[in-house]
Amino acid sequence: MTDSVFYNAHHAPIGAFATFTLGFPGSKGGFGIELAKPADEPIYIGVEDVGGGSYSALPFFSYAPEGEPEKRAEADYDVEGLAEFSRPRKVRQFPPSAVRRNMGAGVDEWQAGDLTFRLYSPVRSVPDPDKADPDTLREAIAPAVLAELTVDNREGAKPRRAFFGFSGASRSSGMRLLDESGLVGVGQGACTAIATDDRDVWAGLAFQPEKILEPSDDDNLAFLVGNLGLLVGVVKPGERRTFRFAIGFFRDGQTTTGIETRYLYRRFFGCIEDVLKHALANFARTSSEAEAFDARLRERLSPERAWMTAHAIRSYFGSTQLLEREDGQPLWVVNEGEYRMMNTFDLTVDHVFFEIAMNPWTVRNVLDLFVERYSYEDDVQVPCQSEPKPGGLAFTHDMGVANAFSPRGKSGYEQSGLTGCFSYMSSEELLNWVLTAGLYLTHTGDSAWAASRRGVFLDCLRSLENRDHWEDALRNGVMGLDGARCRGGSEITTYDSLDASLGQARNNLYLAVKAWAAYLLLERALSGLGETSGACRARVQAERAAATILAARDGCGLLPAVIGEGVDARIIPAIEALVYPVAAGLHDEFPELRAALGYHLESVLRTGACKFADGGWKLSSTSRNSWLSKIYLCQFVAERILGRPIDAEADRAHVAWLLDRDNAYYAWSDQMVEGKAVGSRYYPRGVTSVLWMCSGNRPIAELRELLQSRPGRAD
Amino acid sequence: MTDSVFYNAHHAPIGAFATFTLGFPGSKGGFGIELAKPADEPIYIGVEDVGGGSYSALPFFSYAPEGEPEKRAEADYDVEGLAEFSRPRKVRQFPPSAVRRNMGAGVDEWQAGDLTFRLYSPVRSVPDPDKADPDTLREAIAPAVLAELTVDNREGAKPRRAFFGFSGASRSSGMRLLDESGLVGVGQGACTAIATDDRDVWAGLAFQPEKILEPSDDDNLAFLVGNLGLLVGVVKPGERRTFRFAIGFFRDGQTTTGIETRYLYRRFFGCIEDVLKHALANFARTSSEAEAFDARLRERLSPERAWMTAHAIRSYFGSTQLLEREDGQPLWVVNEGEYRMMNTFDLTVDHVFFEIAMNPWTVRNVLDLFVERYSYEDDVQVPCQSEPKPGGLAFTHDMGVANAFSPRGKSGYEQSGLTGCFSYMSSEELLNWVLTAGLYLTHTGDSAWAASRRGVFLDCLRSLENRDHWEDALRNGVMGLDGARCRGGSEITTYDSLDASLGQARNNLYLAVKAWAAYLLLERALSGLGETSGACRARVQAERAAATILAARDGCGLLPAVIGEGVDARIIPAIEALVYPVAAGLHDEFPELRAALGYHLESVLRTGACKFADGGWKLSSTSRNSWLSKIYLCQFVAERILGRPIDAEADRAHVAWLLDRDNAYYAWSDQMVEGKAVGSRYYPRGVTSVLWMCSGNRPIAELRELLQSRPGRAD
Repeated sequence: MTDSVFYNAHHAPIGAFATFTLGFPGSKGGFGIELAKPADEPIYIGVEDVGGGSYSALPFFSYAPEGEPEKRAEADYDVEGLAEFSRPRKVRQFPPSAVRRNMGAGVDEWQAGDLTFRLYSPVRSVPDPDKADPDTLREAIAPAVLAELTVDNREGAKPRRAFFGFSGASRSSGMRLLDESGLVGVGQGACTAIATDDRDVWAGLAFQPEKILEPSDDDNLAFLVGNLGLLVGVVKPGERRTFRFAIGFFRDGQTTTGIETRYLYRRFFGCIEDVLKHALANFARTSSEAEAFDARLRERLSPERAWMTAHAIRSYFGSTQLLEREDGQPLWVVNEGEYRMMNTFDLTVDHVFFEIAMNPWTVRNVLDLFVERYSYEDDVQVPCQSEPKPGGLAFTHDMGVANAFSPRGKSGYEQSGLTGCFSYMSSEELLNWVLTAGLYLTHTGDSAWAASRRGVFLDCLRSLENRDHWEDALRNGVMGLDGARCRGGSEITTYDSLDASLGQARNNLYLAVKAWAAYLLLERALSGLGETSGACRARVQAERAAATILAARDGCGLLPAVIGEGVDARIIPAIEALVYPVAAGLHDEFPELRAALGYHLESVLRTGACKFADGGWKLSSTSRNSWLSKIYLCQFVAERILGRPIDAEADRAHVAWLLDRDNAYYAWSDQMVEGKAVGSRYYPRGVTSVLWMCSGNRPIAELRELLQSRPGRAD
Repeated sequence: MTDSVFYNAHHAPIGAFATFTLGFPGSKGGFGIELAKPADEPIYIGVEDVGGGSYSALPFFSYAPEGEPEKRAEADYDVEGLAEFSRPRKVRQFPPSAVRRNMGAGVDEWQAGDLTFRLYSPVRSVPDPDKADPDTLREAIAPAVLAELTVDNREGAKPRRAFFGFSGASRSSGMRLLDESGLVGVGQGACTAIATDDRDVWAGLAFQPEKILEPSDDDNLAFLVGNLGLLVGVVKPGERRTFRFAIGFFRDGQTTTGIETRYLYRRFFGCIEDVLKHALANFARTSSEAEAFDARLRERLSPERAWMTAHAIRSYFGSTQLLEREDGQPLWVVNEGEYRMMNTFDLTVDHVFFEIAMNPWTVRNVLDLFVERYSYEDDVQVPCQSEPKPGGLAFTHDMGVANAFSPRGKSGYEQSGLTGCFSYMSSEELLNWVLTAGLYLTHTGDSAWAASRRGVFLDCLRSLENRDHWEDALRNGVMGLDGARCRGGSEITTYDSLDASLGQARNNLYLAVKAWAAYLLLERALSGLGETSGACRARVQAERAAATILAARDGCGLLPAVIGEGVDARIIPAIEALVYPVAAGLHDEFPELRAALGYHLESVLRTGACKFADGGWKLSSTSRNSWLSKIYLCQFVAERILGRPIDAEADRAHVAWLLDRDNAYYAWSDQMVEGKAVGSRYYPRGVTSVLWMCSGNRPIAELRELLQSRPGRAD
């Protein structure tokens, strides 16, 4: 594990689409609510030096470059510089080499000199709002994270000041001091704040930290013109003292359009002061849960894997948004990182392992909204024929973008007439509904829900069959026809920015194996519903898919990326969908398919084909663009299903990608072109990595026990 | 009047702290809610060329500089550029020389080719919410402005598309299409939108305008990933057609902290769609009122003055914020331009002429909040003595900053221990309360309010006396003692960024004349309340002040900027406060003072003293920093009270300052250092210019008739 410590990470409450991002040098972190990237706020965390009168801080704010004069913050007011308002600078930054960091999913700790700064993020399951005890629900979704600032002054001879604060980047509101009994705090508008209940701490606003650290007059601390807010405490000589803070978020009013919602936490909190008080009152429990979670993570995983998993969980939580519709119904959204597409279905199917282990009701909630509003019926195009053939049910790529729910039956992304990025993903999303629903059913046994969705399961089967071929006799189990919405274009897969090897949906190997898996899960779901005939049809299609894949092997036993279209690129995600039958607890009835895919993987996993020079995995032999979320998932399949040993060299390479100086600003990112994050930055999808924690053959149940530290079924 | 047309101007509803800023080239305008500067959004306004298939637009968006490749908008998605998603560019910008503009306070019109684009802003008085008919109030404060796009295709042989749209700069929400019966529109989040009720217009979202102008498929128009929204209509050959739009703003939830409020318009509008429908339904009345207002403006003023007044009124309205407290009480705020200080009292006293003519209840509302929450009692410092002497009532500089109301009795600005910018303005704000209240009383005859404030008037008198000298016998009518809150510092005046000639409060000539005026208005207010003794004391102080000023003349009859402290700079604002007795309708009982000030002005108004080389007025002979709002006010005094002719050369210079390429981005700005706007940019204070419209000796009554186009008293 490299010892680079300067990378941004989310410190996020659950379901608030909010994050306190920190770790990249300069003014590159801070409070983000609903943002596509870090907020780029300066954060001030520091301590007075032992000698007194000067200060050292973590390097999370910017000074003017060496040699350039600092802009006078008061220059817009005192335009001719008559006022001599500035103080000499007394706060320097710790040298990078003096800073240590240790990050888990719950706790992120920095140490420099005798300063320790810890951020605690909640790592919890969210109970079903329709069933939950209100106190449990409130605690799970309180929009706050926690911080601890510790100074060890046991060797010191003088009292030393310690501080924590920020300059807010909101364009519409100024900085303020909180005015609430029992709280000392600084905030911006009614939306973001840092507060403590420690009465020994003072708060102030100024253009520069020196004026708050050493105020000439307490009356000058409420300088609302100042854009910088600090909380300051004093550690006496001989003392080791910890100050505790809550970092709160609050968004009032209507949150989304298309479907009108507000944040569900508004049920419990009327303002940010309520949030801060709640968070401080529950400090001990939240912080100890965070520590316990990290201990479980580290016990099961190598340092590289524990770190990547922690990083991914953080980015996932920072993208979650628990809303409440006008009628009080909860609405769960995972926003798609820098793109902020809402509940992108091909991400949902990757988040499903984590979500079913943590809070399966969110999976059901998303599946239901796809049925209710984001499904449609479509025909299929027949090549060289103007008349379409019947298709059937499909699902949209997403539910909208950045708080704007898209119209009924439409995504915010899909466009007709295309063959690449932004084309339709109808078939892939249809598979994703079946797979996600299948896993949900397996792990909840929610037969009432299954019964209520009987028609949907049957419609999915009919549509999958029709998208294979309109004549049963000519079906091969693999998607062969593009939806009519493409209007002459071609459907794509989730790998929208890759070449045809993974980007084209029709006859794609990745999608063929996924269809095989979906048919198997469909078979079981329909069996459970007593739909014997449908179950049989699904089984037939699964077997056809397996046969088609096996028949596609070339003389060396290798599989082409696109079957029967002359695209002989080699792809790792051929194996991806092997995860679903295993995760669903199905017996392995297709050993030949598994063996063929295992052989394929063994053959392609080498430099020049599906490995980069640094040992990192390359999803397609013909593309430089590789996606970490999918690598993690395929690593799980390779190790636990295909029996390969852990590829520690690859793990080190993947860590290095994330820590690359050009990438580290974006916290966890997915799409890496030769190790550079060029898309899918600041992204939630990496939680596929939690599967690494499973060693047995009941991965989801095992995950639930590991993640929640309690056995049994969640809501 | 220069013919530069490329300058930003506000197009603002009243009381929404919102503006649609437009006019500076590039992506430099757009929707601003509660901002300190323009929103920097690209705005698209254009028409298809006569030949068809190419388009010309006003230059309010940016292309990459010549020779540099345009960033592909889809590059973050289609990371390797495989999708061929972009279309060739077909929209060019009109050459600057082809664009004409004509701006009043109500209508701002551009013409280029056969395209005409007009923006209509409401210019109305706001009725007292506690008394008003709800329909009238709703209409006055609806948070919208209007637009008209006209294409003259009478000579054309082909149908031509016309378009209007924007890319939103909000960091938290994406662009969307409105989904409301009767509206076609594009918006961002729930906060900003452009819409029409014209059923022939279509709306779309894309990365580039070409995809919306010529959609390959109507289903592709709802591309929520796209950051650009356009409304498009078609003008048939042989037709001259106008499309009408509403430009709406909406801010939900808690608006301010310190005092919790929401926008008062929330009483009438539940969402931005309500706002847009209302604005479109009232299009005819709002636009004809705007035209009529501009006609009255142009009838009374030279082109230069009409333009500056229009510009100033726009910037003022864009800074206004009508809020509602939790108990339903209205709360009126004027935000201080780029500084966003709330109800800065030394601006209130400059806005008072406009506000009393338009809606005097807002003046009372502000005065009351100063009494209720933003007043304090303070002692005065005695030089070389540690024991303070009694002072008395004072008012804070402001009520907070950028939606954060400051704590009770505190401004967001004032700091102790200073002698320049950010020091206390206790004495100046005390005078400002007296002058503002005096004008309010004169023009409303609101004796019930006067009676309710009897104690405040008496406290003001006592405090003014004490700030002169603690012994009556040693008083000279002029402020001689700094408040104890200065803690050894010195009070300043509103001219906080100037040198001592205008910046120092103690013994300042500007403040001395202001004190004389305040005592006169106080005398009348106390007389009206039957407080004979208080009225006499005020009269004595006014006479002492006049005598002190007259005695300060040097051998040439010139007055020093600071009396008796050896600061012999010459200042124009010596005459500023002559406005108050005249505006209050008092008889001229101090002809000698008036003559002395007139002589002083005559003597200093020359290059090298109080004129710049370009003929612009220079407020202080020792400072390069001159303020337009105060120049306007002093011009009124010079012309209507001191009998000087209009200085048309100065007007031309002042216009040139505002249109300077470095200044034109900020709409109307106040502080000009040798013609460059370096502070007080994007500023509301220039409405002092409305006084130019008055020719008689009842300026406020005359203004009311001119501005409202109806005689009689407002609420």
